[in-house]
Amino acid sequence: MSTLESRLHSAVARVRENWRGTRLIDGLEPGPAGTAALLDLARIYRANRLEIGRMRLLSGRAVAGLFFDPSLRTHTSMEVATGRLGAHFVYLQGGQGTWGMEFEDGVVMNGAAAEHIREAAPVLSTYADVLAVRAFPKGPNRDETVIRGFAAHAGAPLMNLESALSHPCQGLADQLTLCDLGGGDFKRRKVCLTWAPHPKPLPQAVPLSVVRAAVLGGADLHIANPEGYDLDGHELERARSFCRDTGASITLTRDPDAAADGALAVYGKGWGGDDHEGHAERVAGLSHWTVTEARMAKATAFLHCLPVRRNVIVTDGVLDGPQSRVVPQAANREPVQAAVLLSWML
Amino acid sequence: MSTLESRLHSAVARVRENWRGTRLIDGLEPGPAGTAALLDLARIYRANRLEIGRMRLLSGRAVAGLFFDPSLRTHTSMEVATGRLGAHFVYLQGGQGTWGMEFEDGVVMNGAAAEHIREAAPVLSTYADVLAVRAFPKGPNRDETVIRGFAAHAGAPLMNLESALSHPCQGLADQLTLCDLGGGDFKRRKVCLTWAPHPKPLPQAVPLSVVRAAVLGGADLHIANPEGYDLDGHELERARSFCRDTGASITLTRDPDAAADGALAVYGKGWGGDDHEGHAERVAGLSHWTVTEARMAKATAFLHCLPVRRNVIVTDGVLDGPQSRVVPQAANREPVQAAVLLSWML
Amino acid sequence: MSTLESRLHSAVARVRENWRGTRLIDGLEPGPAGTAALLDLARIYRANRLEIGRMRLLSGRAVAGLFFDPSLRTHTSMEVATGRLGAHFVYLQGGQGTWGMEFEDGVVMNGAAAEHIREAAPVLSTYADVLAVRAFPKGPNRDETVIRGFAAHAGAPLMNLESALSHPCQGLADQLTLCDLGGGDFKRRKVCLTWAPHPKPLPQAVPLSVVRAAVLGGADLHIANPEGYDLDGHELERARSFCRDTGASITLTRDPDAAADGALAVYGKGWGGDDHEGHAERVAGLSHWTVTEARMAKATAFLHCLPVRRNVIVTDGVLDGPQSRVVPQAANREPVQAAVLLSWML
Repeated sequence: MSTLESRLHSAVARVRENWRGTRLIDGLEPGPAGTAALLDLARIYRANRLEIGRMRLLSGRAVAGLFFDPSLRTHTSMEVATGRLGAHFVYLQGGQGTWGMEFEDGVVMNGAAAEHIREAAPVLSTYADVLAVRAFPKGPNRDETVIRGFAAHAGAPLMNLESALSHPCQGLADQLTLCDLGGGDFKRRKVCLTWAPHPKPLPQAVPLSVVRAAVLGGADLHIANPEGYDLDGHELERARSFCRDTGASITLTRDPDAAADGALAVYGKGWGGDDHEGHAERVAGLSHWTVTEARMAKATAFLHCLPVRRNVIVTDGVLDGPQSRVVPQAANREPVQAAVLLSWML
Repeated sequence: MSTLESRLHSAVARVRENWRGTRLIDGLEPGPAGTAALLDLARIYRANRLEIGRMRLLSGRAVAGLFFDPSLRTHTSMEVATGRLGAHFVYLQGGQGTWGMEFEDGVVMNGAAAEHIREAAPVLSTYADVLAVRAFPKGPNRDETVIRGFAAHAGAPLMNLESALSHPCQGLADQLTLCDLGGGDFKRRKVCLTWAPHPKPLPQAVPLSVVRAAVLGGADLHIANPEGYDLDGHELERARSFCRDTGASITLTRDPDAAADGALAVYGKGWGGDDHEGHAERVAGLSHWTVTEARMAKATAFLHCLPVRRNVIVTDGVLDGPQSRVVPQAANREPVQAAVLLSWML
Repeated sequence: MSTLESRLHSAVARVRENWRGTRLIDGLEPGPAGTAALLDLARIYRANRLEIGRMRLLSGRAVAGLFFDPSLRTHTSMEVATGRLGAHFVYLQGGQGTWGMEFEDGVVMNGAAAEHIREAAPVLSTYADVLAVRAFPKGPNRDETVIRGFAAHAGAPLMNLESALSHPCQGLADQLTLCDLGGGDFKRRKVCLTWAPHPKPLPQAVPLSVVRAAVLGGADLHIANPEGYDLDGHELERARSFCRDTGASITLTRDPDAAADGALAVYGKGWGGDDHEGHAERVAGLSHWTVTEARMAKATAFLHCLPVRRNVIVTDGVLDGPQSRVVPQAANREPVQAAVLLSWML
């Protein structure tokens, strides 16, 4: 076994010492230590991607990715990570080329849905070694029906590729990116998460995952958003419960400039509040929340999960300037997902 | 060569002694002995899937799968089987991301279809080592245009992934499942195929493939369906012609309870009869054909090809109870398809 | 290293001596010598496809293919070439399962497009070792926005899989096919490119690529088309600039019979002229441009890029007769694309 291969095996063993789970749904599952071990593994992958690719460590394995919503980064980075490791990725589009799916129990299925999650999840689990599912709802509900249905009925390890409330792989990539910015870690470093205008009231999956990533990594997190756009209180409390362990703190504010001031990273993101009615009209009056060069003046880096609406969320000047780290941030998706796949299948 | 690898080569050789064909269209092609050899090969694959996966036996090979209709199990199990064996699977969606296709000869192609089967099939045959095609018609016709067009013009080995009249991979998986239930084989064992209500008049591909599987395996097959829902007479006769060889028998009845009584397996399935007009209304009066716990009282196992409409075809009680074998039945799709691929390409 | 593997490495080295570029946009980039070296590499691949497939030379590499338009040959041949070489191909459908994309600079993105090329291209470049993009416009514009956007912002090597003006992989395959017909090369051999009726005013990507292929290979090219259907003058001049080097010549004519007379190959193709309005009506009066057995009487072979509209572009008699080489021509797509991939990644 090569040195690199044994380093990988050791890193995988360290993940497993800290996290025996095979469900990554909201991203809190691995806890601070498990997450740190995953990031170490991701760094080895990132630094040796082609050499690791030639090892085909997961040869003969299969990952099924079921997408109910569009994706560019998530699909590509998952499929590339899987393929580089020598496993096979099956891309399935929910409701397009597959059957309509029913998630409720006890239903008389004489309508449009031809397939029940109670069959779909266990059957896919017999073919694939890992299932990965992306489904986020439209509208104000924060409905986790799809991913919860898979969690309840899938026998195979399960990865959430974005639901209403969670985008754990994005969270892992963000944590890795913050570590990169902080020179290894970002403990007690100020991180700003700021709401920004977006024509649609998007789900809170990404901002909540940023909160979890920041808390797991021990940040001094400042969350700025206008009234009516507070993040889900229950999820915020769940994340906050890790603060004592990691030394993290969460500060809520209505002042985006104060939040950005001196931050290691300003993470801009649009999201919907409790009331989705009238969102577009309210947003029209909130254009001062767009992240500008001025707001970035005393911050180090700009982050965003992408896709980003230029000159709405953030100006061209910031995105095309030296503070923007959105491309390396997106690039971090592949290594963190490879780390999870290795942890589950090596 | 490892012991496992030489077992695989021997099993492939036994298939080829009994079946030299490279077309699997209606599932009768391998005959009883060829089918038995395929199932032996499938059992070796099933018991050693990951170890076989690491061998990458079909490295450098390519399978093109062309789907004109939705699929979850068929797509996933074909792609996973191909990928685990080290070959590459190309998923093509008919009429979505590809050109509209013309199947008639002599046509002046100045309409919507841009591509003729006379080019598409031979060209795909130059890229792929195996073609796999799924196309089943809507409406009462039992039109095999697409798969017959490929059979006429494709130079590469060809697998039918479901047409109007045949679903041979499902048939192979069903035969393997019945063998599992029967403790190795199901010769002279009672098998019940029962029509069940479904809002749509589905094609008869699956029930006809169940008939063929039962006959190839030597079952005492009881087919129960209401008036107006008799299976295609010509196809039934073709299957029946194997009965003498295999010791199978076919009994037709209008009494689902009698058919289910004492059966090793009750296979429930909805299908359309000769007349698709008024199907939905007729079905409303046929709800006693739903497979219930009562009907299953004296039977061993419940089977269905999936997707299944719960509480229409069969009750939740049966599906969630100990008699249901629908998940291992679906799981058997991967090994039987892997067996065909190995037989053609190893 | 096997003999075959070292032959491949030498052939790749010869490509690189003549062409250091990693952009294949219009097909002129490799120049006559680079193209000739690519074709030599393609011939080695073509003659040893399965043996090369078992080597998995590009193991651990990833190619992302982004298709904004339908494809059968291009998608399948790219994915198969990639897969056979051991690399992973990610198929992405533009605007279907991915985000709408913006290509203009300085836009306030509060409309339908969620993603800007300025992020999409560099991000995909971090995941994939090669990007391959297909996007051809509808309507009379010859707009290269998409491929130019990727060329401007992608860090990874980039292959054009058909744009408004160029289909370089088709051009390479056509050049290989003409070499096959000419017994090794087609220098100073008469090649006929003839316009043919098609209900739609298609882009000129293919005919312009035929021109480039013919010129790079040194042909005596005769282009026949009716008035109003002249090929793009600027692109024609660019191709013509290579004539002195390669000994090629270009003759423009309105007489398809004269152009076909004595030609090594008659390449039929429909395309739109400067004015797309009234195309369908004009085409109705141009049915004598359909390639018939009579027109082929004194020519050797018929070529077309496919998909071809039978009895509109060309008669059944020609396509199903001995002069048609459209299937081996399409088959040549895989080896030329494999050659480009090997040149960039081996």
